[in-house]
Amino acid sequence: MSKGRLYIVSGPSGAGKDTVLSEVFQYCPEISFSISSVTRPMRPGEIQGEKYNFISKEKFEQMITLNQLLEHNVFVGNYYGTPKEPVEKCLNEGKDMIIEIDVNGAAQIKKNMPQAISIFIMPPSFSALRDRLTNRGTDSSDIIERRITVAYDEIARATEYDYIVVNDDLGSAVQDFVSIIKSERLKTSRCTDIISEILNK
Amino acid sequence: MSKGRLYIVSGPSGAGKDTVLSEVFQYCPEISFSISSVTRPMRPGEIQGEKYNFISKEKFEQMITLNQLLEHNVFVGNYYGTPKEPVEKCLNEGKDMIIEIDVNGAAQIKKNMPQAISIFIMPPSFSALRDRLTNRGTDSSDIIERRITVAYDEIARATEYDYIVVNDDLGSAVQDFVSIIKSERLKTSRCTDIISEILNK
Repeated sequence: MSKGRLYIVSGPSGAGKDTVLSEVFQYCPEISFSISSVTRPMRPGEIQGEKYNFISKEKFEQMITLNQLLEHNVFVGNYYGTPKEPVEKCLNEGKDMIIEIDVNGAAQIKKNMPQAISIFIMPPSFSALRDRLTNRGTDSSDIIERRITVAYDEIARATEYDYIVVNDDLGSAVQDFVSIIKSERLKTSRCTDIISEILNK
Repeated sequence: MSKGRLYIVSGPSGAGKDTVLSEVFQYCPEISFSISSVTRPMRPGEIQGEKYNFISKEKFEQMITLNQLLEHNVFVGNYYGTPKEPVEKCLNEGKDMIIEIDVNGAAQIKKNMPQAISIFIMPPSFSALRDRLTNRGTDSSDIIERRITVAYDEIARATEYDYIVVNDDLGSAVQDFVSIIKSERLKTSRCTDIISEILNK
């Protein structure tokens, strides 16, 4: 059995990563989603183990020491990281997995697992990005401008990714993403079983 | 402007290459089809310049001498080959092109143009292949057995290709093929214009 594939997904805040991914999972329910471990407090509405595992700082530091993380970083005093074990288990079982992560985390994972496939979700333009962040109504204009500055740096690093999906029209972006998953599964390296099966039937 | 991509398509007789490709061109009418040059006589129903350019042996040998062919071979005393100039012109204009060719021709092209994307159209099984060749009603059982033997050797070389598309259900095979084309267009190497455009807008 061939191993599963790991998809690393990044994109600036407001590019629509969550929306695109939730549709992709509708098309590909067999794909798992990697749950990050974080030490920040749970926010209202968040569920333990849904998108994040909320753990103590002590537990996180122990995982760092035991080299149990695929990547990790610190953000405003809290740790964020991807535990190795569930990812390796999933891929070894031949199942695909998606990790949503920032550009620095993506670079760390790609370094540790060069066979991972990286996809950058791109907003169609900075004005569209600004509109989306404004229409969310959750951030002050100061924070929006800071997010735009960060987005600029992130987009400049999009060249490090294997694929670019522009999220202008949601339906097209989802279809593009699904095409990448489909075509990766058609690569000969993943189809050697099919070739030997037909030859030996 | 980024260059067009060249798709090399092979598969045994009876795998359904022509049927798959004619549907793919419905989905992607912007893709060109490479016309082979051949020295064999035109068959009833064939049109000059549709799938083949029928040229003289002298003209073909001149093209060989002038290194004007991407690949060529001899089959039952006739030459078959792919002229370089139309392929290069098409790709330089940023347009994609599909070449349907046997495994030997595919290997020659891939050697000359390693960036070409190769796709092998696979029958679901040898029994399905035999059924299809029989149902065509055009070949004697001797010829069918010979085609099966050739198919075995061709399928054994499918590992040389970038992608495998199994043509069991036609619709799925066409969608698989179109996914490959879509995802190749999303590769970052082809999207550098998009990245610099958004950064400089």
